[in-house]
Amino acid sequence: MNHPPRDPNDPVLRSWVPSSASGDFPIQNLPYGLFREGGPAHPGVAIGDFVLDLRALAAAGLFAPSVANAPALFAEPSLNALAASGRATWRALRARLSELLAEGNRELLEAGIAERALVRRDAVEMLLPLAIGDYVDFYSSLEHATNLGKILRPGSEPLLPNWRHLPVGYHGRSGTVVVSGTPVVRPAGQRKSPDVAAPDFGPSRMLDFELEMGFVTGNGPGLGVPIAIEHASDFIFGAVLVNDWSARDIQAWEYQPLGPFLGKSFATSISPWIVSLEALEPYRVRGPAQEPEPLEYLREREPRSLDVALEVNLASDGMVRSGAPPQRISRGNMRSLYWSMAQQLAHLTSNGATIRAGDLCASGTISGSDPSSYGSMIELTWRGAQPLTLSDGSTRGFLEDGDRVTMRAFCENDARPRIGFGEVSGTVLAGGTG
Amino acid sequence: MNHPPRDPNDPVLRSWVPSSASGDFPIQNLPYGLFREGGPAHPGVAIGDFVLDLRALAAAGLFAPSVANAPALFAEPSLNALAASGRATWRALRARLSELLAEGNRELLEAGIAERALVRRDAVEMLLPLAIGDYVDFYSSLEHATNLGKILRPGSEPLLPNWRHLPVGYHGRSGTVVVSGTPVVRPAGQRKSPDVAAPDFGPSRMLDFELEMGFVTGNGPGLGVPIAIEHASDFIFGAVLVNDWSARDIQAWEYQPLGPFLGKSFATSISPWIVSLEALEPYRVRGPAQEPEPLEYLREREPRSLDVALEVNLASDGMVRSGAPPQRISRGNMRSLYWSMAQQLAHLTSNGATIRAGDLCASGTISGSDPSSYGSMIELTWRGAQPLTLSDGSTRGFLEDGDRVTMRAFCENDARPRIGFGEVSGTVLAGGTG
Repeated sequence: MNHPPRDPNDPVLRSWVPSSASGDFPIQNLPYGLFREGGPAHPGVAIGDFVLDLRALAAAGLFAPSVANAPALFAEPSLNALAASGRATWRALRARLSELLAEGNRELLEAGIAERALVRRDAVEMLLPLAIGDYVDFYSSLEHATNLGKILRPGSEPLLPNWRHLPVGYHGRSGTVVVSGTPVVRPAGQRKSPDVAAPDFGPSRMLDFELEMGFVTGNGPGLGVPIAIEHASDFIFGAVLVNDWSARDIQAWEYQPLGPFLGKSFATSISPWIVSLEALEPYRVRGPAQEPEPLEYLREREPRSLDVALEVNLASDGMVRSGAPPQRISRGNMRSLYWSMAQQLAHLTSNGATIRAGDLCASGTISGSDPSSYGSMIELTWRGAQPLTLSDGSTRGFLEDGDRVTMRAFCENDARPRIGFGEVSGTVLAGGTG
Repeated sequence: MNHPPRDPNDPVLRSWVPSSASGDFPIQNLPYGLFREGGPAHPGVAIGDFVLDLRALAAAGLFAPSVANAPALFAEPSLNALAASGRATWRALRARLSELLAEGNRELLEAGIAERALVRRDAVEMLLPLAIGDYVDFYSSLEHATNLGKILRPGSEPLLPNWRHLPVGYHGRSGTVVVSGTPVVRPAGQRKSPDVAAPDFGPSRMLDFELEMGFVTGNGPGLGVPIAIEHASDFIFGAVLVNDWSARDIQAWEYQPLGPFLGKSFATSISPWIVSLEALEPYRVRGPAQEPEPLEYLREREPRSLDVALEVNLASDGMVRSGAPPQRISRGNMRSLYWSMAQQLAHLTSNGATIRAGDLCASGTISGSDPSSYGSMIELTWRGAQPLTLSDGSTRGFLEDGDRVTMRAFCENDARPRIGFGEVSGTVLAGGTG
């Protein structure tokens, strides 16, 4: 308590918590989640193989006086109150957690709560961390937008005229955002092939994943007040990994002229851990060049992108049952995104739309220039024309029942301990009769 | 208490509350809202010129035993708990309210709370009645979709191939749904004329209203479980009047390929009163013929439409200041909608998407076949080509700063007392510098 405060991002920091020197959750990460160990759900922080119970620490008075009103932040079974508390509180809380967990600190032990407050992660159930207000899905990967233009509108210019001028986006269904691990029932819907006169109704035959990153917001400045791009970071609580499940056949038939609806609204999976924007700061990198230069409200100082490695793994039902390892089918990086989180948020609020604590903004599918980095099946298999072969010998144009999709995201460089988002996984279940 | 229960829709019923024999709120209506009289917000019911405080009645025990757990329904400053309680409770509550307010009933007087629980409506502030989870906007008027096709895609088939097969819809921004009376700041955004090479950024020059009706849902059966069309009514709590404000220039530039976003997300106004589906039952009428016949999951027994008269009134700032009456610029009817509420809800959940208590589904602009019934400025003035002239001599292609738009909706026929939704009004304020 008497030493000067240290930078929670300092790479030489170590924690007294065992198992925290490697893996996704060293002391430099400290991501937030909502967990349950049999009883009611509590907000927590991941550290090594453990989750630290924030409600227990607040009740023991361990956040006072540096974090004002800490018990109220963790009273509800959600992280919305913390997201609503604002950037000064986010920073104060993270600094205090870093202090409490740093090598040599004995405050949890002396308070007699170390054992009770540190719960093994493999013993808890992770829940959807917040009540999500609005969910916006952007379309910010140049490579993905170009690929989909080529696949869906062959023969015409793949990129539409507005794409390089603004971060195209649309609202998704917040009520069907689910936490990693939730099974995904194959949706039914209307599909129509070009060679038949009328649509029919039945289970999607083109079920897909989309590899995305998302950010969770704090409260905005209010209705009618845009957020200037230089202040966007003040309103971003943290980032999550996202799988925006998509039914391509349903989407293709329904989406004109008002955009995707039921082809997307059946499920969107997010990681249980929200990594604070502060923890990601050391991984800022320059973004792709933007040509033409964006209008002034979208102009951002570099470095505007984040170096977050991404991967998608797929296992068939048979592979899961036999214990075969899942097969990595894509490796990408968030840094390839053309439009940044700050540009997305500045655009989203440029018309005066307000944001609420717990709103989720996803990036859109992240694809790189190399085909091995494409972030969806429709791109990886070019709409099924070039199927993938899995290690059990089966092939995939799109996802089959029983398939398990697992995505991972992490920041890694030689100078620092790796920090990660954990994973987003989901298994496809057969739907009812169509 | 000893007479047999009467049908709350019985047209001969009268209330002992003065002023309830005419206007929008006779005893046959009993719409729900959230009001505040200085202090905290309470759920209430409109009756004549009054609003009845439901929390006060629950505290006095006046709902027991017919409505289970009534105090919990009205404990929060929102109607979400009531929406979540389900159809059996909705019906029991309405029956009991009808009984309590019927001519001859003296229970409120005898409990000594009649004076305290009945508050004049002109003395209260009405608030957004619920926390809205997801907001979906459909596109269910054949005439509106046809008009917009002609205006936006001249020379091609106005109606897209999917339109007659499914209720086209998209998700809007639930966080910017506001209650009637909330001023609407003119949004800024990117606009691009066809005759220039690049977009610019500034206040919308094509600000519009959209006349719509919406419905508020209860809780659905859960993720992955569609709602069959014959059960859709069980999940509809009630209906509201909606003005889906639109910036046509922003929308035109942004909406390809993922649909409307910032052109719509700055504000959506709803009536403070939610009229229960039960109160609307006497106004069921046959809907327009559907050709081709919809797929089975969208096939509905007649009468599937509702006979709700609609009107839009416009007053310039000068007219408001001088006390001149607003000018009626459109008269339509909800019965002209091609796709019904039940069809919308069956479609929305056909992919397994779940609904939460407080979700809002709007119809899309309601336009009839006669130009006097068009439900938006872009249709009434044919994108500004045929401006309206107001009573103060000014003309309008789209809305100007200071304009006040007031919509009304009501059900009226010779056999019954009129029931209404009250109004949705909003005044356009100038935006900041673009």
